[in-house]
Amino acid sequence: MTRDLVLALSGGVGGAKLALGLSHAVAPENLLIVANTGDDFEHLGLSISPDIDTLTYALAGLDNQTLGWGRRDETWSFMETLATIGGPTWFRLGDRDLALHVQRTSRLRAGEALSAITADITRKLGIAPRILPMSDDPVRTRVLSDEGWLDFQDYFVARQCKPVLRGLAFAGAERAAAHPEFLAALASPRLRAVVVCPSNPFISVEPILALPGVRAALAACTAPVVAVSPIIGGKAVKGPTAKMMAELGIAPGAAAVARRYGDLLDGYVIDLRDAAEATGLAQRTTLAQTLMSTLDDKVALARVALDLADTITKDR
Amino acid sequence: MTRDLVLALSGGVGGAKLALGLSHAVAPENLLIVANTGDDFEHLGLSISPDIDTLTYALAGLDNQTLGWGRRDETWSFMETLATIGGPTWFRLGDRDLALHVQRTSRLRAGEALSAITADITRKLGIAPRILPMSDDPVRTRVLSDEGWLDFQDYFVARQCKPVLRGLAFAGAERAAAHPEFLAALASPRLRAVVVCPSNPFISVEPILALPGVRAALAACTAPVVAVSPIIGGKAVKGPTAKMMAELGIAPGAAAVARRYGDLLDGYVIDLRDAAEATGLAQRTTLAQTLMSTLDDKVALARVALDLADTITKDR
Repeated sequence: MTRDLVLALSGGVGGAKLALGLSHAVAPENLLIVANTGDDFEHLGLSISPDIDTLTYALAGLDNQTLGWGRRDETWSFMETLATIGGPTWFRLGDRDLALHVQRTSRLRAGEALSAITADITRKLGIAPRILPMSDDPVRTRVLSDEGWLDFQDYFVARQCKPVLRGLAFAGAERAAAHPEFLAALASPRLRAVVVCPSNPFISVEPILALPGVRAALAACTAPVVAVSPIIGGKAVKGPTAKMMAELGIAPGAAAVARRYGDLLDGYVIDLRDAAEATGLAQRTTLAQTLMSTLDDKVALARVALDLADTITKDR
Repeated sequence: MTRDLVLALSGGVGGAKLALGLSHAVAPENLLIVANTGDDFEHLGLSISPDIDTLTYALAGLDNQTLGWGRRDETWSFMETLATIGGPTWFRLGDRDLALHVQRTSRLRAGEALSAITADITRKLGIAPRILPMSDDPVRTRVLSDEGWLDFQDYFVARQCKPVLRGLAFAGAERAAAHPEFLAALASPRLRAVVVCPSNPFISVEPILALPGVRAALAACTAPVVAVSPIIGGKAVKGPTAKMMAELGIAPGAAAVARRYGDLLDGYVIDLRDAAEATGLAQRTTLAQTLMSTLDDKVALARVALDLADTITKDR
């Protein structure tokens, strides 16, 4: 049995960069990317899946590198017009982006599974790796803040993460089924590595871990589980990870993320400038350049993570 | 009691031109435009009201005069992208147009009435006259063709009216309530005139007439009911009216439309070039230039229709 299957757990932007790197570092058909759906939400009657779409755009080469989110070549006529008729404008929906939301919503209402719709859309956009929602059942991240409970996108986009974070809940997670293909991959003798992408642990990875059976399946899987740090020099490349850590009483740092994942992780990739944090970590740790600007950066970092996993396997 | 209220019955493009003319010929707050909703439909999970929107764009000065339908300054990113992910493209939804559909659908799902949503959107777009859906209840025009029954937009847009028309039905009309403001206007002693716009009689005006009580209220109303012919020289300015007449066994012509409306009409405005058709009509008939190219044409034709109504009133 060849160990050729790579399973990536990913949120949005940072995770998508490494997922793109992985898609060049292994045969694309051997890459399964499990996407967080905890920040999915319903807006204007549309079912929006931000992390699935960010992954889709990144892997199709359609991501907007100027904005850092959304689609390339985007136009904003819909949003401009919505403003003139008094519609809500706090969540920016580009005209091209909207096509995915409308099509997904229409197909979900017709009874199709989110995973089937995602598979079809990604195939039509020429994406070879599989992007799989963590679950076809709804899970909704809720934020406990100093202002009380907030819906995730209300906290994240409308309030720009300004309320102080006290805790998180993943509504529906306990009743949601991890996608069978996700669990099958974790149980597969073909599994070479599980890569936890450099996504926000609290809002991008932990919703995935909150699904029944996922932590146990990760602990039981025969392949190494390696993570790439989302923190460089005490800061997140993008997004509120460091702020959230501080508010949760965790000193922001690469090592703290590894400690948060705990014995779920066999290996950890941290940035060269965080070398000092590597000492004292329980996980086997590799230093690398983890800032991913170019495609080469992404592929190189993907190879570092896979090499670490392979080394762990060899040494077992 | 001043007779200052004008009620217009309208479908899309041709009707909207005269409705715009009427909005300049009377104080806008005295104009109530009742819009056909028989060609409303659900597409991609969106509630689309083509005639309401055509009226809205025309009265807001936002109509696309190049295309002859839809919005001015339209962009097509949504549609282009929808095509790349395998979505249906037979019904063209512009990015700006889409804002109205998404907002309307979202508000309808939240339980608001179509008339309330329309009133709000038109007010936000600076439209002074009231555009009122004929009913807040769904009515759906169905087409009996030589290929069997078709949904209206399937016949009209997807099949471009190619199937031969055998008959029409207005599904839901018998259970739908004509909007109370519509019936109140018909019963109002303030009513100066009912103007049946130069819209397709079969698919734009007759759905309105099919609502319970509307024909009786028109027959009973104290103000004259005048129509403007949608046919000039045996042809429709735009759209399939003449083709539909022929397929229904009615020789296409201005007089045939007046005969179709029958004793519902007190007056009729036909084009100068159709003078020969005026003889033998039961309704009091006025000849006018009915092709509306410029705003002046529209206002002038609106004045002709109102003058005809006023003359009928004076002579009673």
